[in-house]
Amino acid sequence: MASVILFLTVTGLFFGLVSAGVADNQIDTFGKQSDGSCDLPDTLLKEIQGYQPIVKKIVDKIVNGEYAGRTWDSLAELVDTFGARVAGSEQLEKTIDYVIDKMQADGLENVHTENASVPHWVRGYESAELVKPFRKNLPLLGLGSSIGTPRGGIIAEVLAVESFKEFETIPAEQVQGKIVVFSPAWESYGRTVVYRSQAASVASRKGAVAALVRSITPFSIGSPHTGQQHYQDDVKKIPVACITVEDAQMLLRKYRRGDKMEIHLEMEDRPMEPVVSRNTIGELVGTTFTNTSVVVVSGHLDSWDVGVGAMDDGGGAVISWKALTYLKAMGLRPRRTIRAILWTGEEEGLYGGAAYKDAHKTQEQKEFNFFFESDIGTFEPRGLDFVGNADAECIFREIVKLMAPLNATEFETPTDGGPDISHWTSRGFPGASLLNKNEKYFWFHHSAGDTMAVEDPKNLDKCVALWAAAAYVVADLSVSMPKDVMP
Amino acid sequence: MASVILFLTVTGLFFGLVSAGVADNQIDTFGKQSDGSCDLPDTLLKEIQGYQPIVKKIVDKIVNGEYAGRTWDSLAELVDTFGARVAGSEQLEKTIDYVIDKMQADGLENVHTENASVPHWVRGYESAELVKPFRKNLPLLGLGSSIGTPRGGIIAEVLAVESFKEFETIPAEQVQGKIVVFSPAWESYGRTVVYRSQAASVASRKGAVAALVRSITPFSIGSPHTGQQHYQDDVKKIPVACITVEDAQMLLRKYRRGDKMEIHLEMEDRPMEPVVSRNTIGELVGTTFTNTSVVVVSGHLDSWDVGVGAMDDGGGAVISWKALTYLKAMGLRPRRTIRAILWTGEEEGLYGGAAYKDAHKTQEQKEFNFFFESDIGTFEPRGLDFVGNADAECIFREIVKLMAPLNATEFETPTDGGPDISHWTSRGFPGASLLNKNEKYFWFHHSAGDTMAVEDPKNLDKCVALWAAAAYVVADLSVSMPKDVMP
Repeated sequence: MASVILFLTVTGLFFGLVSAGVADNQIDTFGKQSDGSCDLPDTLLKEIQGYQPIVKKIVDKIVNGEYAGRTWDSLAELVDTFGARVAGSEQLEKTIDYVIDKMQADGLENVHTENASVPHWVRGYESAELVKPFRKNLPLLGLGSSIGTPRGGIIAEVLAVESFKEFETIPAEQVQGKIVVFSPAWESYGRTVVYRSQAASVASRKGAVAALVRSITPFSIGSPHTGQQHYQDDVKKIPVACITVEDAQMLLRKYRRGDKMEIHLEMEDRPMEPVVSRNTIGELVGTTFTNTSVVVVSGHLDSWDVGVGAMDDGGGAVISWKALTYLKAMGLRPRRTIRAILWTGEEEGLYGGAAYKDAHKTQEQKEFNFFFESDIGTFEPRGLDFVGNADAECIFREIVKLMAPLNATEFETPTDGGPDISHWTSRGFPGASLLNKNEKYFWFHHSAGDTMAVEDPKNLDKCVALWAAAAYVVADLSVSMPKDVMP
Repeated sequence: MASVILFLTVTGLFFGLVSAGVADNQIDTFGKQSDGSCDLPDTLLKEIQGYQPIVKKIVDKIVNGEYAGRTWDSLAELVDTFGARVAGSEQLEKTIDYVIDKMQADGLENVHTENASVPHWVRGYESAELVKPFRKNLPLLGLGSSIGTPRGGIIAEVLAVESFKEFETIPAEQVQGKIVVFSPAWESYGRTVVYRSQAASVASRKGAVAALVRSITPFSIGSPHTGQQHYQDDVKKIPVACITVEDAQMLLRKYRRGDKMEIHLEMEDRPMEPVVSRNTIGELVGTTFTNTSVVVVSGHLDSWDVGVGAMDDGGGAVISWKALTYLKAMGLRPRRTIRAILWTGEEEGLYGGAAYKDAHKTQEQKEFNFFFESDIGTFEPRGLDFVGNADAECIFREIVKLMAPLNATEFETPTDGGPDISHWTSRGFPGASLLNKNEKYFWFHHSAGDTMAVEDPKNLDKCVALWAAAAYVVADLSVSMPKDVMP
């Protein structure tokens, strides 16, 4: 809750600093009252409510009409044709070329790519085996940026702990030369993922030769999960991988019983020089504001190198592209431009978004009106997760109510609005993330389970309908979304 | 339903053929009336109901008392110490030795093993990779009894079908030299497992070089599942493995779109000569009938070679052993002997049960009163699944009612009563299988997901309490369970 309070305070400080020079219709301050209620001008309220028939029409066409099922088919064709799309891979660049062709065939406008430098890390042969006291294969996935082992691997004794706190109590001389297994209990992704990102650095400081981490998931069927990790600047780099929940728990139990264990770990993973990838962009150009006040809808096209990234984030990328395809096909062109951006290099640290932010920095106040991002699943939609100032919130609350035909009127706030768009939303631009019934998201996340089997055609239809409808309304409204942008 | 009707008819034919020479108290015919109701003698009904305090005491001690949590700890120690226990492995034989020692330490009686010849099949290096049109690792598990590929593997074009019916329509010349992928929709284990057991034979008849089958599970997180398969006598043996649900579906979609695909398949799996393993046995000797009218409680100690077989069937084996441990510790010794049998070689085709049946054939009518088996999970217990004649059913229905303190009074019938005990129950001996909330059983079955993470301490307590209570009552009753045994 500390970060929530901080955010509202910062927003308050900058309230009223609506930037000059925006070639769009701005409105006077109204926003939230001291009692938390909104005081929207009656004309604006009526205007928003007036979009209900258009929203209904969009939903009808996409969920029940001629576009029903097409989004799943498009996503399936994409992931079946190219498979995983990790940053630095030929498959990602081929996918980008394919999407560009398809966007053009769909009639999207200003279809193009913009370069972004992304990390390049290559998974090689990976193997972990418990060799004492009995032999057992330990399925594993090296973590993004991890170095490999020497050829032939290393064999070392195991030291297992449940937490960093427990590890702190262990003298360095007991850790020296060991493989450290971290088997933390699952709390939430946000609270547990620190073990994935920091285990190597924490273990290395006490002389460990490698770190193995319980996969960051609440549920497992023997699958390891990958993800990015970061070496702190001043530590010796050691190999790091996630093993399965089941094996991590087993190793911890054995260690606590006093069993002496050795693991043979071999990883040919290797970090390479960064490469140039591309963000993939297509538009539905607005009738009135063609180069300003753009409404961005986005997801990332890159994935990890296991599974096929149908969920993370093929679904988010494809609904962002297809929302424009269907609006165009329906002849619905709003006043402002809607721009689909399919980010690259998200998984390694939001590189596509960062490059795009830098390239568009000078004009950003004028250029951007609102940012949508879908990167936490495209299961059955629940509503939208808003970030922005109090005035924008009051408007957006009314827009979310229009999603009643999808039974997706839940409004949540504030969040960071999604990882890639946080380059803007963290500085005061308004944005929203797709709320959906993603309770099982981390079951599949960054694992071989991230495939089309996770995606449901009807749910994808509903997600793209919500995406198209919400973006259309924001882009067509008589006023631009209020914002208080920090430099 | 056809098999159900057949079973009742056969039971009817043999009704009344209670064998001579059983040194136990037999009862007159009463059993089910024509309207389906039971007409148990009032004294017998009252006698059964009189066991309620003992059942409650057993439940209290095991679920809420000093034994609470111990069964999970025992199972965890077993699987953590030895890992997977496939027939023919050193780990299985070491586990048997360990259980023998532990049973003796627990004070079980007549602790011993009895030999059984079991198949020996060894999984070697296994790899499948889609090499055209793009490279993708396809996690797989060779199926028990499968041959391997030549060294270096085979590369062949893919032909994918959904069903045997669809495969029938394809001319042999189109199958020649191909790897056939079967991607059947999940119906139920019983209806879908035929693809695992028969795919190699079906594909080989049309000249396929290998068969890959969708894993037999309704749900997957990218895990392959293994299991036994059978070559028909007159076909050329070809390698066969299960791939993940996700990959099977993907290959089928690609095939139907007309994508040309090639897979590189390498399997070093090899069938070996059968070896001698052992069924593991311990008893709580009865006060009155020491060598006759034995009540068997059982599960199998062997497992597949992936995961650690905590669910299939570590749980069933350990509750059968620990039921006796706790009854003995509580000083509860029934009139008849309760015998825990931990079968070996179940996974490859019920070899432990078969050997035991043959060895005890001559005296079986006299020797055995009732067979319990737990081999479909030890999740939260629901009740018991009965097989036997109408008289036995009437008695057993009343016994199941005693399980009210466990909220496990569901009675189902008829089934085959469990795989290993079907050697007897299919011929008219009465038996029962542990009903439990095992809706997710096949998610983990024969996969890396079959581990302690599936087992819950409280549920295991409830299962072993039900096992101990039901076995005690059957073993202590004044009358033996009626049976109509076919030769």
